[in-house]
Amino acid sequence: MSKVSLIGAYNTRFGAFVKKNKETGEITDLMSIYDLIVEAGRGAIRDAGLLPQDIDAVWVGACAPGLFANQEHLAPAAVEIDPEHFRFIPITRTEAACASSSVALYNAVYGIESGRFKRVLAIGVEKMSLLNTAGVTHALACCSYWPAEGGRGMTFPDLFAAYAKAYQAHYHISDEVLIRMLATVAALAYKNGVRNPLAHFGAGGPSDKYKLFSADAILQLPAEKNPVISTPLRLHDCSLISDGAAAVVLAPTALAQAEKRKTVEIAGIGHAVDRMPIGAHANMHELAAAKQAVNTAFREAGITSHDVQVAEVHDCFTISQLLCVEALGLSPDGRAGYDYLEGRFTSEDACAVNLSGGLKAKGHPVGATGISMHAMLYKQLAGDPIGVAYGKGQPEIGATLNIGGVGVTNCVTVLRRL
Amino acid sequence: MSKVSLIGAYNTRFGAFVKKNKETGEITDLMSIYDLIVEAGRGAIRDAGLLPQDIDAVWVGACAPGLFANQEHLAPAAVEIDPEHFRFIPITRTEAACASSSVALYNAVYGIESGRFKRVLAIGVEKMSLLNTAGVTHALACCSYWPAEGGRGMTFPDLFAAYAKAYQAHYHISDEVLIRMLATVAALAYKNGVRNPLAHFGAGGPSDKYKLFSADAILQLPAEKNPVISTPLRLHDCSLISDGAAAVVLAPTALAQAEKRKTVEIAGIGHAVDRMPIGAHANMHELAAAKQAVNTAFREAGITSHDVQVAEVHDCFTISQLLCVEALGLSPDGRAGYDYLEGRFTSEDACAVNLSGGLKAKGHPVGATGISMHAMLYKQLAGDPIGVAYGKGQPEIGATLNIGGVGVTNCVTVLRRL
Repeated sequence: MSKVSLIGAYNTRFGAFVKKNKETGEITDLMSIYDLIVEAGRGAIRDAGLLPQDIDAVWVGACAPGLFANQEHLAPAAVEIDPEHFRFIPITRTEAACASSSVALYNAVYGIESGRFKRVLAIGVEKMSLLNTAGVTHALACCSYWPAEGGRGMTFPDLFAAYAKAYQAHYHISDEVLIRMLATVAALAYKNGVRNPLAHFGAGGPSDKYKLFSADAILQLPAEKNPVISTPLRLHDCSLISDGAAAVVLAPTALAQAEKRKTVEIAGIGHAVDRMPIGAHANMHELAAAKQAVNTAFREAGITSHDVQVAEVHDCFTISQLLCVEALGLSPDGRAGYDYLEGRFTSEDACAVNLSGGLKAKGHPVGATGISMHAMLYKQLAGDPIGVAYGKGQPEIGATLNIGGVGVTNCVTVLRRL
Repeated sequence: MSKVSLIGAYNTRFGAFVKKNKETGEITDLMSIYDLIVEAGRGAIRDAGLLPQDIDAVWVGACAPGLFANQEHLAPAAVEIDPEHFRFIPITRTEAACASSSVALYNAVYGIESGRFKRVLAIGVEKMSLLNTAGVTHALACCSYWPAEGGRGMTFPDLFAAYAKAYQAHYHISDEVLIRMLATVAALAYKNGVRNPLAHFGAGGPSDKYKLFSADAILQLPAEKNPVISTPLRLHDCSLISDGAAAVVLAPTALAQAEKRKTVEIAGIGHAVDRMPIGAHANMHELAAAKQAVNTAFREAGITSHDVQVAEVHDCFTISQLLCVEALGLSPDGRAGYDYLEGRFTSEDACAVNLSGGLKAKGHPVGATGISMHAMLYKQLAGDPIGVAYGKGQPEIGATLNIGGVGVTNCVTVLRRL
């Protein structure tokens, strides 16, 4: 089986692209879900040095566009990337909560490996800012197990807070230390984010304005600036509600190399799904299914954790970043928080994590996040980084860990520059 | 490339599985979306003669479970088919409006053809009856192009009525003749449906009670029993709002034959997506993109329209059945209505259409419909028909045409008994 590679990538700006009329409450959409899909799709095709007629099929990952933007049946929106050439090609939408577009990418890989398609476009998108906070909370709660969780008033901060408490208890971490660990994670995200020109919390944004670039700066915020959302998680432990899209172009590696594209191979993938209710998760101090996905992806790629130089991981909450770093084996179990306290995972580390600013600072348009991780790593590996560059030269190996639900859908990709 | 085959299938009963308290308005769910997935998945595995541990991956098609049942991130619900063995395997949800599960099945085919998976389960599901009619209408309207259609109050009956009017005008059909054509389509669906034990409008149901088995019986209904929904479409031109699920098991043909399974090959598939706004559809007297999908599928299968003995087509409205029959080439363009008037497409015809009763009588749990078509044809081709059997012996070739939106996503499968 010939492997598949990324040959182009594009990430739109992430942000809240709406204008709210303070008097009437009316919302004007400044960048629609349709606009985002078209910008990302065209951008990735251009980045690959291709034309729309070169694309055989498209996959679109989106989490809940019906709830967020009144648009189910989202796949056909991609026809507008180039109506002349995209009309009549196969376009598939996948959904896996916040891992929707990693799953889109994996199905695109299968499509190429099947021999049915050569050059394929995979897009991730979400438009979240049309709704108020209650609306967003409802839409996301539909991604938990509704009968026992969302439908009973549990929010995603509540669910990840349960993981945070289990982690704290299992590893006997004091409240004070845990809070400092989490703030350290957030501060590094903010530090990277302000140098990412596409980030929701970028230069001039709130994290820049208040210089939230150290745990101390975050911990010294007055309570009203960093309220508890769900103990132990505070506002600055939570990722952002964003609009955005990202896209990549995929092709068989042999074709990519023959055509001398900037080729970053999808060396391994892992997609492992756990039971939906967190009540069925025996151990909440770790991401059990994510570890399975890591094993699968690393085995296919023939690498170990030590080989990973750049990673983009799923920091929907700061606690999940600790869990992801451990699932990838970048820290031993129970050590990720201490590693952050010791200053690891910056651009100068052997393994840099979330140079993009992650979901916390780059933003988290949920359906876009998976492919955005791949797009940002593609640019790092291809020697054309957006924002903070890996500090030890052009990296060769990167890994993503993208999660849907509370450790339920787990997607791991190993990328290798050729 | 080795082809892929169906080796087992299961269809749950279709219906409205809720109890409404007339005093309080409270709704009790008698068969949840989770129950439906589990019943269909286990049923298909059993029908294939396999055990859950034989399954490598699962695809789930569903249209709008977030809107219908507050449950996005639906894929993990399939873990409950067998938590011991399905925990940690890849499970993917696809969405393509009413073609959601045909697309799931196609991605399952790519997964097997990629060499990554051997035996795969594909499930389609929808739970629609928790909402009232307004809620269902909103959810479905999200499957049209929201900015110009659903968001402006256009419903799916309105959109298909536009196609009906264009068809009528293009072929110069009088109102009276068109209405009779459409009623003839509905009557045949009802006639087949009452013999399908799984049908929403089955034995003892409304179509049986009022003996709506001829165009006359339908046309003679008083206006309040068959009101105009959107001219020229009346109530009995519209499919049903149903709950249900269906599932199939897929495997490489070589493996299926080596293991002596009841093997029905997926001889060809076509998946063609048109522009979303119907304002962009130049010719509304035909399903242009469906014709492309038919060409692709028939070319891969090496067949022509004349080879098709049993077909399940997308009669979300009676007009769409005429359009589907023409897209498949079972009638010449503009002739399908006359062919129905002349009594074609019954079980005794060379090509029998919608022996299941179709969306009109079997029911239309939107995300289940695509795989239900495949499941019903599998049973016909495998010699174990559910309900009305093809009248000319065990058929060899079947075809599905499953549509999402108003001719937007178009999925055609050719099935061949081996």
